[in-house]
Amino acid sequence: MENVKAYYSNAPVGGIDFKNKNINDQGNVLLKPLLTGICGTDRGIVNAGLSFAYNPEGYNFLVIGHESLCQVIESESNQFKSGDIAVPLVRRPGNCPNCLIGRPDNCSDGDKHEAGITGLHGFMREEFKDYDYNLVKVADPSLGDLGVLTEPTKNVVKAFEVFEKVSSRSIYYNSSSTLERKKALIIGTGSEAFLYALLSRDYGFETYILNRHPIEKNKMEMCQAFDVNFVNSSEDNDFPDKSSIDLLIDTSGDPGTVFGFVRKMNYNGIAILFGTNEKAPVGTVTGSDIDHIVERNITIAGSVDAARIHYIKALNYLSKWKKQYGNVLNDMITGYYKPGDLDLFRKKPDGEIKSVIRW
Amino acid sequence: MENVKAYYSNAPVGGIDFKNKNINDQGNVLLKPLLTGICGTDRGIVNAGLSFAYNPEGYNFLVIGHESLCQVIESESNQFKSGDIAVPLVRRPGNCPNCLIGRPDNCSDGDKHEAGITGLHGFMREEFKDYDYNLVKVADPSLGDLGVLTEPTKNVVKAFEVFEKVSSRSIYYNSSSTLERKKALIIGTGSEAFLYALLSRDYGFETYILNRHPIEKNKMEMCQAFDVNFVNSSEDNDFPDKSSIDLLIDTSGDPGTVFGFVRKMNYNGIAILFGTNEKAPVGTVTGSDIDHIVERNITIAGSVDAARIHYIKALNYLSKWKKQYGNVLNDMITGYYKPGDLDLFRKKPDGEIKSVIRW
Amino acid sequence: MENVKAYYSNAPVGGIDFKNKNINDQGNVLLKPLLTGICGTDRGIVNAGLSFAYNPEGYNFLVIGHESLCQVIESESNQFKSGDIAVPLVRRPGNCPNCLIGRPDNCSDGDKHEAGITGLHGFMREEFKDYDYNLVKVADPSLGDLGVLTEPTKNVVKAFEVFEKVSSRSIYYNSSSTLERKKALIIGTGSEAFLYALLSRDYGFETYILNRHPIEKNKMEMCQAFDVNFVNSSEDNDFPDKSSIDLLIDTSGDPGTVFGFVRKMNYNGIAILFGTNEKAPVGTVTGSDIDHIVERNITIAGSVDAARIHYIKALNYLSKWKKQYGNVLNDMITGYYKPGDLDLFRKKPDGEIKSVIRW
Amino acid sequence: MENVKAYYSNAPVGGIDFKNKNINDQGNVLLKPLLTGICGTDRGIVNAGLSFAYNPEGYNFLVIGHESLCQVIESESNQFKSGDIAVPLVRRPGNCPNCLIGRPDNCSDGDKHEAGITGLHGFMREEFKDYDYNLVKVADPSLGDLGVLTEPTKNVVKAFEVFEKVSSRSIYYNSSSTLERKKALIIGTGSEAFLYALLSRDYGFETYILNRHPIEKNKMEMCQAFDVNFVNSSEDNDFPDKSSIDLLIDTSGDPGTVFGFVRKMNYNGIAILFGTNEKAPVGTVTGSDIDHIVERNITIAGSVDAARIHYIKALNYLSKWKKQYGNVLNDMITGYYKPGDLDLFRKKPDGEIKSVIRW
Repeated sequence: MENVKAYYSNAPVGGIDFKNKNINDQGNVLLKPLLTGICGTDRGIVNAGLSFAYNPEGYNFLVIGHESLCQVIESESNQFKSGDIAVPLVRRPGNCPNCLIGRPDNCSDGDKHEAGITGLHGFMREEFKDYDYNLVKVADPSLGDLGVLTEPTKNVVKAFEVFEKVSSRSIYYNSSSTLERKKALIIGTGSEAFLYALLSRDYGFETYILNRHPIEKNKMEMCQAFDVNFVNSSEDNDFPDKSSIDLLIDTSGDPGTVFGFVRKMNYNGIAILFGTNEKAPVGTVTGSDIDHIVERNITIAGSVDAARIHYIKALNYLSKWKKQYGNVLNDMITGYYKPGDLDLFRKKPDGEIKSVIRW
Repeated sequence: MENVKAYYSNAPVGGIDFKNKNINDQGNVLLKPLLTGICGTDRGIVNAGLSFAYNPEGYNFLVIGHESLCQVIESESNQFKSGDIAVPLVRRPGNCPNCLIGRPDNCSDGDKHEAGITGLHGFMREEFKDYDYNLVKVADPSLGDLGVLTEPTKNVVKAFEVFEKVSSRSIYYNSSSTLERKKALIIGTGSEAFLYALLSRDYGFETYILNRHPIEKNKMEMCQAFDVNFVNSSEDNDFPDKSSIDLLIDTSGDPGTVFGFVRKMNYNGIAILFGTNEKAPVGTVTGSDIDHIVERNITIAGSVDAARIHYIKALNYLSKWKKQYGNVLNDMITGYYKPGDLDLFRKKPDGEIKSVIRW
Repeated sequence: MENVKAYYSNAPVGGIDFKNKNINDQGNVLLKPLLTGICGTDRGIVNAGLSFAYNPEGYNFLVIGHESLCQVIESESNQFKSGDIAVPLVRRPGNCPNCLIGRPDNCSDGDKHEAGITGLHGFMREEFKDYDYNLVKVADPSLGDLGVLTEPTKNVVKAFEVFEKVSSRSIYYNSSSTLERKKALIIGTGSEAFLYALLSRDYGFETYILNRHPIEKNKMEMCQAFDVNFVNSSEDNDFPDKSSIDLLIDTSGDPGTVFGFVRKMNYNGIAILFGTNEKAPVGTVTGSDIDHIVERNITIAGSVDAARIHYIKALNYLSKWKKQYGNVLNDMITGYYKPGDLDLFRKKPDGEIKSVIRW
Repeated sequence: MENVKAYYSNAPVGGIDFKNKNINDQGNVLLKPLLTGICGTDRGIVNAGLSFAYNPEGYNFLVIGHESLCQVIESESNQFKSGDIAVPLVRRPGNCPNCLIGRPDNCSDGDKHEAGITGLHGFMREEFKDYDYNLVKVADPSLGDLGVLTEPTKNVVKAFEVFEKVSSRSIYYNSSSTLERKKALIIGTGSEAFLYALLSRDYGFETYILNRHPIEKNKMEMCQAFDVNFVNSSEDNDFPDKSSIDLLIDTSGDPGTVFGFVRKMNYNGIAILFGTNEKAPVGTVTGSDIDHIVERNITIAGSVDAARIHYIKALNYLSKWKKQYGNVLNDMITGYYKPGDLDLFRKKPDGEIKSVIRW
C-alpha cells in the first residue's frame, strides 16, 4: 500500500496507481487532468457514505473525480488537437427516450452511468482516454483555472432550465414582464450555492443566500461583489418577508430546512431541490404546509445533473462572470492541493468554497 | 331561528333567509339554483374549521355554496335567455397579471375572491344575480343533474393542465410517444378522486385509486366501469411496484400519505397536490426522500381551483363520460337532500361520493 | 388485365396479386384489411404525379394504401388476439432524435418511411404482417366503419398540437382564458377539412369552412350538424371580417389562396399549412403581406403526419363525435367501392368526402 | 424654415423647435437625449413612406426618434437620480391580455402606441418627461455609446424568444442536446442583421450573414471578429448546402428573397420574419414551396418589437459583447451626426451600420 496515488470507493483512501494500466480506457482522445474539483459526493464515496455509488462492472474499485479540467495529449479526432483544454461529461446515456436525445440528466429508467460515481471510472488519473463527443472544449483562454467550475456550474444552468419550464404553468413574471423585485433565496453557502446566486442575479432576481451561522470574510466579500444578500437564519428568523420567496433553491438536502422555507413561499413560487444529504435529520410537513403548496400553486422540483448543452452554457456564463467580476470569481477556488493530499477527503477545509487538486 | 334557510360561516348552521334581501346582488342575469353540490370546504366553513374562509366586506355572515347548477330566470344579456342552464364561476379576479388574463386560479397576490368561500357570497340562495361573463352555459341537455359536477371537474382539468406544463421539463412520454403503461395513482376515493381517475384514464394512464380501508360496493362498481384499479393500502403495502408511480395525485391533504408515495415515484414523476386538510397529522420527510426527489427529477405541484376554460372543458368531459359510461356516471351523485337538511353539513353520509341539495 | 388486384406506382394501375408472396412481410401479427380509405396521395401515386413517393428497396413497385382499418387474423403478440380491430401506423422511424422518441412525424433528417407512400409497402393487400407496436387497437365497437377515418384524423390531432405549441409564444386566449369568439377558417371542403372543422369546434372556435364554389347538399347538412359555417369565397369576398382570422388551416396546398387569407389574419394568428398540391398555380406575396406577418406576430406552421399518440387521440375523438353526432358522422364516408374499382383512382366521385374500399 | 430643429411626419423634414412647449409631457422623470439612433423606420416616416405611422391625438405632427440613450436631468422617482443613464421603452400598452402582462409587443388588438412611430411623440427633443416604469436603467458604465443599441438589440432578443417557443413543437436540438453544427442564415447586413448574428453565435449556431452584393471592409472585419460567415448571394447561389438552413432570419422584408431561402430550409426549420419593406417587389410562392413547408414541419414566424424584459436582456448582451469583442463592437456605430444634419434622413450614408445623432 506504499504507492497510494489514487482514490477508490471500496476501501480507505488509497490503493491504486494513478497510471493503473488495468483500467480499460476507450476513446479517440487522450487527456491528462489539469485540475480536479472536489465535492461532497467525492468525500461521500471515499468515506463509504454514499449508498448510490457503485464500481464499474468487472472492477472492485472506482476511480473518483468528476469535476475535471483536462488537457488533450493526443487526438485522433478532428475536433480536438494536442494542447486543447476540455471538460469531460460526467453522465453517459442509456437507452431511454431522454438519454437518446442527449439528455441523460433526465434519464427515465436509471440506466445511465456517471464517471467517478456510478459504474464508470472517473478522471482522477494521470491520463485517460475518452471520445470527442464526451468532451466540451474550453475555448476562452482568459478563463484559466475557472474552467474547473464548469461541472458544478452546468448543474445550475440545468436547474434554471427546470425553473423556466415549470414556471410556465402560470404568468410568473410581474406585470412589466420582468423578474424585477422577485426574490430568490438560496439555502447553503458552498460552491454550488454561490454559482446559483450568480445565475439568479443574471436572471434579475433580488438574491439572498442563507446559512444558519455567520460566514467567513471571503464569502461575505463575494456576496458584496455579486450583489447578493447574506442571511444568517439563526438571527433573521423572519427573513425574507413573510411568504415572499418566489424562487427557493436548496443546496443543503436538509428536509427540515427545505420545508421551513417552503412555508414562506409566494404564490406561484418555484422551489428547486438540488442538494442531497441522506443522513440529514428527519423533517416534518404539516397539513398547513400542504395547504400552502396547494392554495398558492407552488411547485417543488428536484433537479440533478445536466446535459452537454448546459456544459456549453456554463462555460459561457463563467467567461462572462470572469470578465464582469474579475479576480473575485477566482476566489471561488479556496485551495489548491496535490494528488497525494488525502486529508482533503477526510475533512472539509475551513472556509472552503471549492478545493481543487492541481496535477 | 325557526326560519333557518341558509348557511353561514360565523355561527352554527342556520341564520338567514334564502331570499335575504340584504345581500347586494349585481349582475345582468337572474338565476335560481337547481342543484348545489356539497364538499369538504362547505362542511369546513359551516363547522368553523377553515382558517382561510372569510365574510364579504360589510357582512357578518357568508352565504356558502360554490358547486352550483342553476337556471336562468331573467336575462338582460344577449348571451343567456330565460330557461338556460348555467354554472357560475367560483373565483373572481383581482388585478395581478394572472387575474388580468382570466386566470384568477393562478392569482399572484391572493387578491381574488371565491364565491361561497372567501369574501363573496355563494350560490345557496333561492335566487341571485350575476354577470354573463361569470356564467358558463350548459348546452348538452343529456347531461341532466351531472352538470352539478362541473365545478369539481374543472379543478381536475386545471390540474392536468399543470401536469402537462410541468412534465414538459423532460420527455415524459414513452418511446412510442404515448402514456401506455404509465401508472397514475390517486390518493382518496371521494368525488374529486373519481373525477381525477376518469380523466387519468382518458389520458391513457393505467390508473389506480387508493384508500387505507375497503370501499363500498357502489365505489367498487364505478372502479370496474371506469377501468380503474382500487388499492387498499392497508393490505397492499408494496403496491404499485416499487418506485413506479409516474403520476401521483393527492386528494387527501395528508402529508404522511403524500410523502409515503412520493418515495415510490418513478423517474421524472409528477405529483399533483390538490387535497387540503389543515388538521391532518404531521408527516415526516427524510434525507432519502429529498434525495429521491432530486436524483429522479421529480416534480411536486400544488394545484388549486380553475379558470373559465376549465369549466368549459369540464362540461365537455362530463358530456363525453355520460355518453360513454351512461348511468354509472349518475351514481357519482350518491344522495339528494333538501335545503333544510342541516345534518348533511354535520356528518358525511356513508358511501358518499357527491351529495347534492335539490332546490 | 384480368389479374388486376393491387395498385402500384411505377406503371398504370394494376399489376400484382393482392396475395403477392414476393412481398417480404415481417411482424408478429397477421392482419387483413376491412376498409381502406382513398385520398389524394393515393391518386397521385397511381397517376404518377407525386414526386416524393418511391418504391421499397429491392422492389420495382409500391403497394399503396395507408388509410387502413384491419382485423387481426393471427397474433403472436399478447397485445392482440384474433378478431381484434386495429389501425396500422403509416410512418416508421429512422434514427434522428424525433424518430427515437416515437415522433417520426417530426423526423429531423427525412430518414423515415411511410407505408404505401415512401419506401414501404402499404396495406392494400389481402393480408399482411406487422409488429404489435405498429398497430393501434380500435376498442370502441360502436365506431364501426368510422375507424377508417383514424388515419386522416390523426393528422388533424397533430396539427392542433402544433397550434398549441406555437401559439404559446404569446397569450393567445382571450381575457376570459377561453377561445370564445375566436375565429377559425378552414380552406377546403374535403374529408380533412371536415375533420379539422370538427376538432376546431371542440376547441371552441367559431368555425368557418371555405371553398370557391357552392358545396353539395350532403356537405351543407354536415356543416349544419357540426355547427360549422360554410363560406363560398366567390361570393363572400370580405368574409370573415377584415383581418380577423385567429386560426387559419389550409387543406388545399394552393399558395394563392393561402396568402390571400394570411393577409386577413388577426394579431397573434396561427396558420397551419397541411394540404399540398405541387401542381398548384404560383401565388404571390407582397411586401405588405410580409409586413402584416411581422407587425401582427403571425405564425405559419407546416404540419405533416402524426405519431402513435395522435392515432390514439384520433380514435377517442371519433368515438366522441360518433356519440355526439350519430349517423351524420357516418355521412363522412360517401362511397364504398370494391378492390377492383380502378376508376376510383382515376376520377374523384362527385360530392366525395371519403371514398373507401371494402374488402 | 430657419428654426428647423425637429423632425415630423406630415411635412418635409423640419418644423418644430426641439424645446417645443406645446408637447404635453407626462412623467416623474425629466430626461435629455445623449444619442439617438436612426433606422429605416425614421427615414420612412420623414419621407412619408410608412403607411402605419400616425400622429398623436390632437397633434398635426409626430416627433420621431425611438432609439434613444438618455440622461436623467431631474427625478421624482426613487428609482432614478439625476445623472443616471436610461433607455425609454418604445411601445406603450393598451388593454388586451398581452398588454396587461407587460407584453405590448404581442398586443392582441393593435390598441398600443409606439413612441416616435404610432400615435405617441418620440424622443428626438432636447428634453422630455417619462414615467420611471417606462425607463430601463443602463448600469454598466463600460457600455458607453453602445447603450444606444439597446433598442435594436431588444428586438433581436424577443425574436429569439419566439424562436425558442415555436421550436418547442419538436426536438430541435441535435442528439447531443446542443445546436452544434446547426446553421443560421441571416438575410441582410444592416445593424439588426449584425445584432442577430451576434446572438445567433451566442446560441451556438454556425452563422451566415447574406447580401446580394459584396460588403464594405468594415463589415467584413466585423464578420471575422464575430466568427460569422458572409455570403454574397449573387455569387454563391448554392449556399448554404441545399436545404440545410435550420434558422432563417430575414431583415430585408423582401418576399422574393425570403421565400427563395424558405425553399432551402431544413426539417423542423424556423424562419423569423423581422424586416419590413412595403415597397418591396412582389415575390412568388409555388405549390412546391408549400409542400416543402408542410413536409418538413417548417415554421415561419413574424416578430415585432419587444418588452421590458428584452431591453434588460439586451443591455446584458451588449455588456457581454463589449467585454468579449472590445472596440470592434463600437464599429457598429458608423457615424455620428448633429441634430441639424437633415441629409441623414434623406440618404443612407455609405457603409452605414448604425448612424446616431449626438446631442
